[in-house]
Amino acid sequence: MGKGGQLINEVAKQAKRIKQENMAAWLVDVNTIRILPFKLPSIGPNDVRIRIKAVGICGSDVKEPMVIGHECAGIVEKVGSEVKHLVPGDRVAVEPGISCSRCQQCRGGRYNLCPDMKFFATPPVHGSLANQIVHPADLCFKLPENVSLEEGAMCEPLSVGVHACRRANVGPETTVLVIGAGPIGLVSVLAARAFGAPRIVIVDMDDQRLAMAKSLGADETVKIKKAMNSEVDVTFDCVGFNKTMSTGLNATRPGGKVCLVGMGHGMMTIPLTPAAAREVDVVGVFRYKNTWPLCLDFLRTGKIDVKPLITHRFGFTEKEVEEAFATSARGGNAIKVMFNL
Amino acid sequence: MGKGGQLINEVAKQAKRIKQENMAAWLVDVNTIRILPFKLPSIGPNDVRIRIKAVGICGSDVKEPMVIGHECAGIVEKVGSEVKHLVPGDRVAVEPGISCSRCQQCRGGRYNLCPDMKFFATPPVHGSLANQIVHPADLCFKLPENVSLEEGAMCEPLSVGVHACRRANVGPETTVLVIGAGPIGLVSVLAARAFGAPRIVIVDMDDQRLAMAKSLGADETVKIKKAMNSEVDVTFDCVGFNKTMSTGLNATRPGGKVCLVGMGHGMMTIPLTPAAAREVDVVGVFRYKNTWPLCLDFLRTGKIDVKPLITHRFGFTEKEVEEAFATSARGGNAIKVMFNL
Amino acid sequence: MGKGGQLINEVAKQAKRIKQENMAAWLVDVNTIRILPFKLPSIGPNDVRIRIKAVGICGSDVKEPMVIGHECAGIVEKVGSEVKHLVPGDRVAVEPGISCSRCQQCRGGRYNLCPDMKFFATPPVHGSLANQIVHPADLCFKLPENVSLEEGAMCEPLSVGVHACRRANVGPETTVLVIGAGPIGLVSVLAARAFGAPRIVIVDMDDQRLAMAKSLGADETVKIKKAMNSEVDVTFDCVGFNKTMSTGLNATRPGGKVCLVGMGHGMMTIPLTPAAAREVDVVGVFRYKNTWPLCLDFLRTGKIDVKPLITHRFGFTEKEVEEAFATSARGGNAIKVMFNL
Amino acid sequence: MGKGGQLINEVAKQAKRIKQENMAAWLVDVNTIRILPFKLPSIGPNDVRIRIKAVGICGSDVKEPMVIGHECAGIVEKVGSEVKHLVPGDRVAVEPGISCSRCQQCRGGRYNLCPDMKFFATPPVHGSLANQIVHPADLCFKLPENVSLEEGAMCEPLSVGVHACRRANVGPETTVLVIGAGPIGLVSVLAARAFGAPRIVIVDMDDQRLAMAKSLGADETVKIKKAMNSEVDVTFDCVGFNKTMSTGLNATRPGGKVCLVGMGHGMMTIPLTPAAAREVDVVGVFRYKNTWPLCLDFLRTGKIDVKPLITHRFGFTEKEVEEAFATSARGGNAIKVMFNL
Repeated sequence: MGKGGQLINEVAKQAKRIKQENMAAWLVDVNTIRILPFKLPSIGPNDVRIRIKAVGICGSDVKEPMVIGHECAGIVEKVGSEVKHLVPGDRVAVEPGISCSRCQQCRGGRYNLCPDMKFFATPPVHGSLANQIVHPADLCFKLPENVSLEEGAMCEPLSVGVHACRRANVGPETTVLVIGAGPIGLVSVLAARAFGAPRIVIVDMDDQRLAMAKSLGADETVKIKKAMNSEVDVTFDCVGFNKTMSTGLNATRPGGKVCLVGMGHGMMTIPLTPAAAREVDVVGVFRYKNTWPLCLDFLRTGKIDVKPLITHRFGFTEKEVEEAFATSARGGNAIKVMFNL
Repeated sequence: MGKGGQLINEVAKQAKRIKQENMAAWLVDVNTIRILPFKLPSIGPNDVRIRIKAVGICGSDVKEPMVIGHECAGIVEKVGSEVKHLVPGDRVAVEPGISCSRCQQCRGGRYNLCPDMKFFATPPVHGSLANQIVHPADLCFKLPENVSLEEGAMCEPLSVGVHACRRANVGPETTVLVIGAGPIGLVSVLAARAFGAPRIVIVDMDDQRLAMAKSLGADETVKIKKAMNSEVDVTFDCVGFNKTMSTGLNATRPGGKVCLVGMGHGMMTIPLTPAAAREVDVVGVFRYKNTWPLCLDFLRTGKIDVKPLITHRFGFTEKEVEEAFATSARGGNAIKVMFNL
Repeated sequence: MGKGGQLINEVAKQAKRIKQENMAAWLVDVNTIRILPFKLPSIGPNDVRIRIKAVGICGSDVKEPMVIGHECAGIVEKVGSEVKHLVPGDRVAVEPGISCSRCQQCRGGRYNLCPDMKFFATPPVHGSLANQIVHPADLCFKLPENVSLEEGAMCEPLSVGVHACRRANVGPETTVLVIGAGPIGLVSVLAARAFGAPRIVIVDMDDQRLAMAKSLGADETVKIKKAMNSEVDVTFDCVGFNKTMSTGLNATRPGGKVCLVGMGHGMMTIPLTPAAAREVDVVGVFRYKNTWPLCLDFLRTGKIDVKPLITHRFGFTEKEVEEAFATSARGGNAIKVMFNL
Repeated sequence: MGKGGQLINEVAKQAKRIKQENMAAWLVDVNTIRILPFKLPSIGPNDVRIRIKAVGICGSDVKEPMVIGHECAGIVEKVGSEVKHLVPGDRVAVEPGISCSRCQQCRGGRYNLCPDMKFFATPPVHGSLANQIVHPADLCFKLPENVSLEEGAMCEPLSVGVHACRRANVGPETTVLVIGAGPIGLVSVLAARAFGAPRIVIVDMDDQRLAMAKSLGADETVKIKKAMNSEVDVTFDCVGFNKTMSTGLNATRPGGKVCLVGMGHGMMTIPLTPAAAREVDVVGVFRYKNTWPLCLDFLRTGKIDVKPLITHRFGFTEKEVEEAFATSARGGNAIKVMFNL
């Protein structure tokens, strides 16, 4: 065997090793991501192993050295002994948080508030931007035939909008103001539309994003000053700054609700008292619960189309991962940046 | 007849006129109250005329020259042609706000948010610290035999506590933190107890008021720093300062509620985002609705005793009125200051 | 002037009188309707006088001699002194029930349960199948430009479907079974669709009506036996027979709701206990409240199209009125029979 | 060793064997109960093994040969490796149903409707009238010091009353009619009282039981005919017969609720339509969820005293078990029959 043969051999071996070894995107330092091996746990009787195919980038960042990513979908490779509703080959969207199912919050129906939640890419739990993950089968939802893996990954951000609509009780009688036309603002527009909101106004400073919002179903796009004089039933503040929250409180009608979805400022200086004196309630939104089946139904029936939100796509190499995060951080015309693995 | 006889005659005439004429306490300037004639409107078919017997002082102050007072009870003197549930001589507690009954809020069951509300002592509507008032009969609630006129007047502040408990859905599973042991904080303790709250903690800086709170049914009295580490289901902030609201947000368990009842600061600087991220909701409280029958039932059955809150009593002369307001403003051991007319 | 001239003269006079005089359709005996004069009350300050232009026939029948009709719309002719939101010439849809606005139900937000309700064509209150009526202005809702008077009259039956959807909390997560494809069943389909129900199954024995239901947005039409094995979130029984209610109870998933909308049988023999043991709740529906603005919004935006329901039209003569009621009673392809006055 | 010594030896051995072997009450045939060995499963990491000390008899009967009993309390003997909140020696009340924690009902907060529920003495799951059981630790609730094991066992029936009160939203504004003064009717009285119901009327035919109800806090005891004319907010039908349910439907005010708690008749012939036309809702009650902590709190604070309900006590021998069931079945003055093991 000549040198060429040896090389081919070597590459083949390495390829096999790479294929066998599970690789993941590790945040090893501030702004430094490396693709490194990530050991999979063994599959429990109620778990499945999934080959990840699509992962979206979310703005939230982490501090510790860990695997990142939590908006994902993939293909089932192996199922635990007790798993009944999935078989290898099934395409699934993945709900990223594992709640304890035993605490007061879990048993009371608010598992998103479980104090023992194990959530992808939230220390000390690793994320899902990896070739493979192991996950509880009941958190893996089979994709309808006409829903793509990328759309499956979009169930995660969409769930935030859906949960916000549920918490604010949005329906065909609820006029909605959405503040901020970033990814969360835009999924809130989509969700509010799907929940029947008869009128949705969106506020942002970026004209490109406002145009996107309009094409997604917003009825009107306004600058923040004009929003002040509205009389909406529900406001979703998807920014979370003093100014946006103040706008939301002022723009909401007596007896209405302001959902704080974005988390810009920790401490806030806002006109809360005059709002409370009109019984405008402030409703917190933390992640979501029981949203995947509904999201998939919205996608299957076409009630919601998330595809326009996916503006950029990257492969799973260190260079591309870096570029992808930079693109996402730049904002502007980048709404949702997606990895195809 | 000599000069003295003439004078006596004159005074007697005037006294008679004064007695016949309806007199009321007018705020004529900042801190200046005068007892002056107050013309009664005619009685409509659904109205009653009431001789006022008890009026409590509330901290809220007004700017314009007008008759003050809105916590009152009295005796029915005359009833309109359509009034069926009241007869002259009936002792009644008076709900002070007249809503339009036609707007969306009224028809939707939240008449306290009616934009056309006519409320005692809220410009341009005069108050009820007067010998007589004319009022819609359906806002006059007959006192049970064992409930005094003073207790009847206390239905108004008590209603704030009752409405807050309803809005926060207080029940036998709700631990409660009350911040502020002023009149509103104390009625909130009473109401929370009557709604079945299994544990009520109260926070204040005044030891005298904390002692009062404890005697009214609070389980524990704490200083504000200690309250920070609680895990209560519902907090009533009856002060409304940055510090109290911050304490409330931090002290409330994930999924709990903070009721903003007090109205200290307009703009607030508070850690709203971390609270929202635990789905702690902020619930506004504006006055009350449909509370009088419940308050009277609480008083009749002894479930609530408001008598200890009445710490000072005054007659209806200019001198006493002035003294009464000064006493109320001093705070300290003065909780509720009551006029007996 | 000869006899012929006198007769013509006489007829002309009478015609003029008739035109000036307000005529209405009186049920004078079982199945006997006469068009006779109907004296209008004077207009109060908050009333309007309306020239009625469209009235739909509803299956409910009455016993006493009285003016019938309660699904109507018309044109404002005169407004009371306090009326601000309407002027003569406005086209309005009319909510037929006048509640007292003072009782516990009214003040609690459920005015449809007001014990003193005055409702068109419910003894002793006359109906609205008349040239003119006088009605409170706040129960007259201005029609959007693109909504016809006939569609305005349809707000009344549509309101029943809307109220049922609200009571059952129908939304984008609620699968719905509608039993009965008569007028109320069909407006329930329309309302459930507008409230976002992702799947609506309708049951009837009449293939023509099932076809209509399908064209209005029902996803599936089934025979009653097949419905038994469903697992829907909410059932609307728009018939109210033992068989339909039993089907509804069995077809609804644990924790779901059955709305009893139709009123076929008074006493019912049904498997209530096994349903209760699955926490399937039975929810009563009585008329509606606060539905007109929402209905008009649905019609304006095209979210709901009621026009296909109007299958027959008649003028306002005794002969036509009789024929119209006979047509409506025959059922079959007659869904909604409408008078044009 | 003499004969006496041998005997003692033999007895000691047998005692040891009995002690080691777990014995349980098996229903081996209709009305035939035998105390036979019952093999314990191994303890999982989240389980505990409990020595049962108190078991109450419930009227529900079973068909298959199995271990009976589901109202129980005992002492923790051994804890699984992951159990943190319990140690051997802890006295605990036991919630008898193990839900799957993964299905839609469990994740939605209604685990009592879990289709995969494993519930004591519900085929094919064995009951807890045994010396020892193995159970998930999170379904074992530590008894407060002042709550006895018998009271701990009473948490199970009390939970039914508590769950009914929650489903009917009983509070200080809810007048309550309880139909049937058996064990479930009586715990409903206790629970309604603890939830703040201002007035509780109880209906039964048995004067002894009505007297018991009165001593437990019912305000009035009436015969069923008189109940017909009530106007209560909520009725608990704890019998479930045509007659009782009809009474409940008629006695409840417009907009009120009837809770079907008892399960006497499967098919029911009742005036449902007139009730629905007053928007009286029928609310099903199936077991309970998240009730043990609240029940224990009620018992600890003395808000509820269940001790008077325990009218008879028996030991754990075949003869006594038989006698106990016969006593319970006779009814009359036997409310709750309790085993002390």
